Amino acid sequence: MENYKRITSEVLLQIRSIISSEQVFTRAEDLEKYSRDETEDLRYVPEVAVLPDTPEQIAALLKVCNNYHIPVTPRGAGTGLSGGALPVYGGLVISMERFNRIIEIDEQNLQATVEPGVITEAFINAAAEKGLLYPVDPASKGSCFIGGNVSHGSGGPRVVKYGTIREYILNLQVVLPNGEIIWTGANTLKYSSGYNLTQLFIGSEGTLGIITKIVAKLIPRPAQDVLMLASFGSNEDACAAVSAIFRAGVVPSALEFMERRGVEWVIEHDDIVFDLKGNVQAFLLIEVDGNEQEMMFAECEKINAVLENFGCQEVLFADTSAQKEDLWRIRRTMAVSVKSNSVYKEEDTVVPRAALPKLINGIKEIGHRYGFQSVCYGHAGDGNLHVNIIKAGMSDEDWKSKLSGGIKEIFELTIALGGTISGEHGIGLVQKDYMPLKYSPVHFAIWKGIKQVFDSNHILNPGKIFS
Amino acid sequence: MENYKRITSEVLLQIRSIISSEQVFTRAEDLEKYSRDETEDLRYVPEVAVLPDTPEQIAALLKVCNNYHIPVTPRGAGTGLSGGALPVYGGLVISMERFNRIIEIDEQNLQATVEPGVITEAFINAAAEKGLLYPVDPASKGSCFIGGNVSHGSGGPRVVKYGTIREYILNLQVVLPNGEIIWTGANTLKYSSGYNLTQLFIGSEGTLGIITKIVAKLIPRPAQDVLMLASFGSNEDACAAVSAIFRAGVVPSALEFMERRGVEWVIEHDDIVFDLKGNVQAFLLIEVDGNEQEMMFAECEKINAVLENFGCQEVLFADTSAQKEDLWRIRRTMAVSVKSNSVYKEEDTVVPRAALPKLINGIKEIGHRYGFQSVCYGHAGDGNLHVNIIKAGMSDEDWKSKLSGGIKEIFELTIALGGTISGEHGIGLVQKDYMPLKYSPVHFAIWKGIKQVFDSNHILNPGKIFS
Repeated sequence: MENYKRITSEVLLQIRSIISSEQVFTRAEDLEKYSRDETEDLRYVPEVAVLPDTPEQIAALLKVCNNYHIPVTPRGAGTGLSGGALPVYGGLVISMERFNRIIEIDEQNLQATVEPGVITEAFINAAAEKGLLYPVDPASKGSCFIGGNVSHGSGGPRVVKYGTIREYILNLQVVLPNGEIIWTGANTLKYSSGYNLTQLFIGSEGTLGIITKIVAKLIPRPAQDVLMLASFGSNEDACAAVSAIFRAGVVPSALEFMERRGVEWVIEHDDIVFDLKGNVQAFLLIEVDGNEQEMMFAECEKINAVLENFGCQEVLFADTSAQKEDLWRIRRTMAVSVKSNSVYKEEDTVVPRAALPKLINGIKEIGHRYGFQSVCYGHAGDGNLHVNIIKAGMSDEDWKSKLSGGIKEIFELTIALGGTISGEHGIGLVQKDYMPLKYSPVHFAIWKGIKQVFDSNHILNPGKIFS
Repeated sequence: MENYKRITSEVLLQIRSIISSEQVFTRAEDLEKYSRDETEDLRYVPEVAVLPDTPEQIAALLKVCNNYHIPVTPRGAGTGLSGGALPVYGGLVISMERFNRIIEIDEQNLQATVEPGVITEAFINAAAEKGLLYPVDPASKGSCFIGGNVSHGSGGPRVVKYGTIREYILNLQVVLPNGEIIWTGANTLKYSSGYNLTQLFIGSEGTLGIITKIVAKLIPRPAQDVLMLASFGSNEDACAAVSAIFRAGVVPSALEFMERRGVEWVIEHDDIVFDLKGNVQAFLLIEVDGNEQEMMFAECEKINAVLENFGCQEVLFADTSAQKEDLWRIRRTMAVSVKSNSVYKEEDTVVPRAALPKLINGIKEIGHRYGFQSVCYGHAGDGNLHVNIIKAGMSDEDWKSKLSGGIKEIFELTIALGGTISGEHGIGLVQKDYMPLKYSPVHFAIWKGIKQVFDSNHILNPGKIFS
């Protein structure tokens, strides 16, 4: 464990000389908000939380903390599922909530410059108003910050057609732990000018620097979409259909998997009217988009032919935008609904997509042996399955002592199938113990070496990704 | 300058114990091939060149060279335009030409595993036979290696619609300078599990490790395409039309710019029959693709409307695949044709696409002041312009002493317009002196720190990207 210093009154004075006192929080009741994110029931209280307005203030804060060896945890909206925003060593939380401006949407270049505290959906909507698409839309888009998305390499349903966040982040302004402010690259669609620091920051979970501006690529917005919900008698059938859709030559703009149990809990929790038939075990929520109806209909026909081959029971088309919104709401509120029903633990597995049937069958089998249930859903088109482990009948004792063994087996299976530990939630605090299942001491040595280059005193978001 | 050791007979004995003698070259006539790439007339002769077959042989070679402090230059097909494959300190060249197997095309997961010495076009064709698209197709695709593409973050015409090579490289097997062999990530479409080493290797120009296997993403291949050639009375009109096409809501599958002079030289050099009208100054070669004719025709109509607004003189549609091939041949052979006509120097600028008119006008103005001509062409849809500086009437004296000042001004302009020094050719040997125009000592310190993590003895491709 690192030997960090506490924030003394001397340090606090320096912090208050940088940033207006009403944006510096020290009282227990004010700090409570900054002690949690959406990762289960974890709680780590910082000593001080600040809400800066400018990169220069962050630079000054980092210089002080670097000088006094005080841990600093950058924080977005706190919607993370891996504990990335938790100040596990106390110290200073830098909340980016005041960095909430969309600085420019450049319609000539189809680029936007935004601050990291912009809510993802607000940015998506601002782009849509100009006829443009920013296709990175995590389920939490209504509350998460784009800075958090960048830091975790987050995705969402539309990655499957439009590419990952890595394709949409062109340039970043970052403040380094020593107080230097740099742009990582250039505002260009292509880049071959030295090691790509923009890409290195994506997914680095706030451990290398603090992002203060983001230049994002936009694309023309497709005019129309068709949304359908396909129901299946088994998880395996639904999952097996996924890779077959691509093999049929179609790339849907979303291809989401949902287990029956998840839909049941959404209906209960969210008061959504939905006719859940008795023999249905799993769903695929499939969207195609485009500018020409002919094309979309042709794609839907191809998809339908595949679905029939995989024992699909019924395909429900959403006819109105209200119906579309309802179907999307089922998928988007699933995490919250499931979690409100039980003590749970969420993992974020990703495998090559044809391995999904083996993955989901394996998860059920592991649960059977360990005595836990699970509700799975996620971005099946990307092979990305969110696994919500449900305590159900497991005893408190077993939940505490045996669960990690079951999770370990889930990740061992994921890795054996060619996958890795997280597709879009990050490693943060809660997955880091499983990293040696996939990565060798050579990987850890490289990662630690890179960390050392940026943050030689280890003040930035300590305790995350690796120890 | 680093104090490297020579390859003594003792070292050579060790090399020959690792690799069969007929794959170890030491004679001047055998080494000639490994002393050049396609970067102007540069020549650096290695002491020894080897053609290994396995990652384990490379690991053993690197251990020896690391031990004796001998510089190692990995080499692909030698088609690079920045001197990246030149052994500037002598030492050992490791040619990857025997790593030429397409190991697997996985039709279930739409992924392929290939060795780095596979010719890019051979891979594209192998994927096409399965109805799949690997959309990264540099102009040199008929001779370049996919490993070189990865090392330089190379692109090609279709990046504009399908995304950069960064979106298509999922995982890499690499040999590190200390002889360790690792996979950088996982064979998954998404990845949020620690600092992304796959992305760090892309564009690292062989300075961090030697790539020995590549896992690439494939997508369904569109069934049809339409190719058109639009002619303009000025460079500026053609360039201005580029960003307007995207603003009209169309993303073409290729959008290439060509200057008249380039087309003239292709006609001369390549014996291509083409009716070049007197008042034409510039061309846009525009492709749209898809599965539905309706959609492509609708897109072509939108494009046509834009072209008319920007003073387009004529739009020629390629009716047959032979005509398409001819038009693409004009674009693809332009580099070779221009270079066969004159002493030249090639630079690879990239800017936000709406800045293209200012960039090309500025380049002409700089040329006018310095006395050089230029022929520009490239991936205009990405804002990526290749600038071929032609010696023409410039005296030998001025070419030697003044040209670098002109290039410096071109890069200063590029950077002032929001761009950077290279979009897809890399920095290598010949662009590195210009890097301080864009990047600060902080960037250099970070890059050097990262280099140090992987290659503490600086044996891998020394003298590239930065000094």
